[in-house]
Amino acid sequence: MSYTIGQIAALLGREFRGDGTRTLRKVAKSETADETALIFMQGEESTRIELGVLRAACVIARKGLAPDGINVIFSEQPKLDFARAAAYLHPRPKSNGSRHPTAEIHSDSEIGENVELGPFTVVEAGARIGQETILHAGVVVGKGSGVGSECILHPGVILYPGAQIGNRVILHAGVVVGSDGFGYVSDGCRHFKFPQVGTVVVDDDVEVGCNTTIDRGSLGTTHIGEGTKIDNLVQIAHNVEIGKHVVIAAQTGISGSTIIEDYAVIGGQVGFGDHARVQKGAVIGSKAGVLPGKIVRSGEIYWGVPVRPLREYKRLNALFGRLPEMKAEIEALKREVAELQATRQKGN
Amino acid sequence: MSYTIGQIAALLGREFRGDGTRTLRKVAKSETADETALIFMQGEESTRIELGVLRAACVIARKGLAPDGINVIFSEQPKLDFARAAAYLHPRPKSNGSRHPTAEIHSDSEIGENVELGPFTVVEAGARIGQETILHAGVVVGKGSGVGSECILHPGVILYPGAQIGNRVILHAGVVVGSDGFGYVSDGCRHFKFPQVGTVVVDDDVEVGCNTTIDRGSLGTTHIGEGTKIDNLVQIAHNVEIGKHVVIAAQTGISGSTIIEDYAVIGGQVGFGDHARVQKGAVIGSKAGVLPGKIVRSGEIYWGVPVRPLREYKRLNALFGRLPEMKAEIEALKREVAELQATRQKGN
Amino acid sequence: MSYTIGQIAALLGREFRGDGTRTLRKVAKSETADETALIFMQGEESTRIELGVLRAACVIARKGLAPDGINVIFSEQPKLDFARAAAYLHPRPKSNGSRHPTAEIHSDSEIGENVELGPFTVVEAGARIGQETILHAGVVVGKGSGVGSECILHPGVILYPGAQIGNRVILHAGVVVGSDGFGYVSDGCRHFKFPQVGTVVVDDDVEVGCNTTIDRGSLGTTHIGEGTKIDNLVQIAHNVEIGKHVVIAAQTGISGSTIIEDYAVIGGQVGFGDHARVQKGAVIGSKAGVLPGKIVRSGEIYWGVPVRPLREYKRLNALFGRLPEMKAEIEALKREVAELQATRQKGN
Repeated sequence: MSYTIGQIAALLGREFRGDGTRTLRKVAKSETADETALIFMQGEESTRIELGVLRAACVIARKGLAPDGINVIFSEQPKLDFARAAAYLHPRPKSNGSRHPTAEIHSDSEIGENVELGPFTVVEAGARIGQETILHAGVVVGKGSGVGSECILHPGVILYPGAQIGNRVILHAGVVVGSDGFGYVSDGCRHFKFPQVGTVVVDDDVEVGCNTTIDRGSLGTTHIGEGTKIDNLVQIAHNVEIGKHVVIAAQTGISGSTIIEDYAVIGGQVGFGDHARVQKGAVIGSKAGVLPGKIVRSGEIYWGVPVRPLREYKRLNALFGRLPEMKAEIEALKREVAELQATRQKGN
Repeated sequence: MSYTIGQIAALLGREFRGDGTRTLRKVAKSETADETALIFMQGEESTRIELGVLRAACVIARKGLAPDGINVIFSEQPKLDFARAAAYLHPRPKSNGSRHPTAEIHSDSEIGENVELGPFTVVEAGARIGQETILHAGVVVGKGSGVGSECILHPGVILYPGAQIGNRVILHAGVVVGSDGFGYVSDGCRHFKFPQVGTVVVDDDVEVGCNTTIDRGSLGTTHIGEGTKIDNLVQIAHNVEIGKHVVIAAQTGISGSTIIEDYAVIGGQVGFGDHARVQKGAVIGSKAGVLPGKIVRSGEIYWGVPVRPLREYKRLNALFGRLPEMKAEIEALKREVAELQATRQKGN
Repeated sequence: MSYTIGQIAALLGREFRGDGTRTLRKVAKSETADETALIFMQGEESTRIELGVLRAACVIARKGLAPDGINVIFSEQPKLDFARAAAYLHPRPKSNGSRHPTAEIHSDSEIGENVELGPFTVVEAGARIGQETILHAGVVVGKGSGVGSECILHPGVILYPGAQIGNRVILHAGVVVGSDGFGYVSDGCRHFKFPQVGTVVVDDDVEVGCNTTIDRGSLGTTHIGEGTKIDNLVQIAHNVEIGKHVVIAAQTGISGSTIIEDYAVIGGQVGFGDHARVQKGAVIGSKAGVLPGKIVRSGEIYWGVPVRPLREYKRLNALFGRLPEMKAEIEALKREVAELQATRQKGN
């Protein structure tokens, strides 16, 4: 898509300086920008940019920090407005409305208007696909599943029967939604499958990374709230409830019935025991471990295994690194005390 | 499936109280149960249930703990019997025996009686599929592989050539069995692939979660024993031997040639170095790390990186949290000893 | 493939002892070797082999350590030469040049000579596939992607539009290359997608394990260098640069813009924060955690969370295990010092 600088500035609701008629065709980083590119400056990197060749068509920058000799859109949140501008210059792909002849669509399914169905897609009985949605090659939509409108399901996405997906959801390649949760009851001899007959609901504007797996509820519902973003290779177990606008980085695993409230931010490779709860807006650092049943409070950053408030974690970790000195100090004290004891004995 | 309360009680070999002719159609949790639902009570939650609306048709409960005013099946293991009942009310899907016209079945393969082949399934030369097995959409069964009877391979499962799968095995979406192990020999300049020409055998009644990967042996065999249950996104390397009725939670990784004996229970995100051994029935907590060659003994719970018996881990972890106090105590001792030394000096 | 012992010895450039005309058909381990098998001995296991039945046709062994009564190819690096020999006896599968009738090849794509296209493969507009490459069942090559010559893409591999793959690359089942990176900018209310419009380049002779995910650059390029080997279920984020001949074990996650230089060796389940750098040849142990921005220096082995040089890690870990003793020593010192203070007081 192309826009003029003036158009983008207007769409962002920002002022600009320079040639508003200049055409923008793409976003870029300064090092590789060409004469149709929009770049941005957070502030700190101004020196680097000013020294570089200012080939870009336009920069989004804070008012005081914009370099000379280049068109500028002024913003107090340059990175945010750059992302917003990118949504105009590189809009999300639109459905072309075509149904590939190899698509296997069950007669008892509802396909909305202008849905794009790639080669070897499968839509099973009772499934519904909302308008303008794209199913890429090899996507399987199981019996009775629902996909909203304007969704993009990348190649190889698999929805188990009954999975419910909202609008404008993006599921990346290899995502599985609605698989059986991992629950068994042992009689001491073998494992009986605990029923995994619940449902899974993914709300509007969620994006899920490649090969991530989201299990259905066992008896209840696994729920991913609106606007939540999940990275690659994440595991979300049965009955997990994730709030709105949560961010979860790659390879994190969330055990059964754990609750992550709105606006929480979860790093990569974090592990959650079952029935834990992360309160609204809490931040959990990468590789942290949250014990079963643990409540992680709002308004703090947490780190470590098991998780502790970041300040405490840092302090403990620094002391961990000082264990050799502590040990040496104890040894020195033991010598000194022994000497004092010996002196005293002599003194007596 | 529907059964009367009396029929389910008889199938479970348990006594019941109330209206044995009442129809059960599903299992549920008490909060969402309707008048055809079977629920269960472990015991602790009795208060909650008694206060709730007892809409369910029947509850499985311990004799002394069953609430009044509802039909009851008595059991000393309510959760186990609930799971057993669920297997009647929600039986595992049965093959419908249909072969989708798009299924690509090599003429030199053996397909058993009443096998269900979904759209875009591929069965390569020399492969054998046992009777009543279901291959869902897009499953690929490689050359010379074998799948037993009554198996369910969910969409997108891939068996590399030669993989051998037992009876009643469930492989969830995206599982890969029989891929090359990760072995290279360096000449100091580049990596030569160590041969990955072994086999992989998955025994009867195994269930494997979505996107889990199980490599073939390098020169020998990777083996998953009967009744073992593996969660999503688990990595099982070449030559690993897993015993019977083992449970392995999500995102755990098991390095080459490690042995996990029968009835072991492994948490999520655990990592095993190569050539480790977990003895029969040992329990390893989530996020633990087992060093290469380590033997984890029977009859204990292990935790931490590297793994330690849980009691020891807990004690060390508590002391870790007390490092600031320990440091303060050392500082205080240093002051006091210095003072004692000063006094002594003066005394002399 | 079959070769005589003499031929293999010549191909390896090594001397042999015994019957050079004897036929070799496979590599094996000594326990399961038959009369056409080539085995190897690193040295330490010589006793075991000598006691076993020497059925193998030939052993690769160090000069002084070769057992009697068996044909021997002498090598100072038996495992390396065994791997090299295996490449002759078990050569990488060759394309049979067939195009399955169900393959969906866009008319505006370039398919090289003798490419093998399995059932339900998809090659989109503008994609190029080099000669002798094999696409197994269900592989999807997105718009404008390029795959070099003699590659093997196992079933279910997905290349997003624009991904560039070199020559002789092996991508195992379920690998995704070129997916959107995980980047968002929040306005405090919801998350705006940071543009993920960069590219991804995988160089020659790379091998990538099952279900591993490699994201495209956000504005720049994600790059995997020549000869690098990546295990199963690894996550490689946007803008990551991995050098040549790097080895990365299973379930490791590498955050955005991190650089791993040539010949680094990374264990399993390692986590890297963003913008970290691993210098040439550094070795990082399994489960380690590398903080954002951290530089991991050459010539050392690192371990732990956060990573420390192995010697330091071992020392700290040993002291961690001694915390109860340290605490007891502090308690004893406190008693002794109190006693000394009491004595002094009395003395005064």
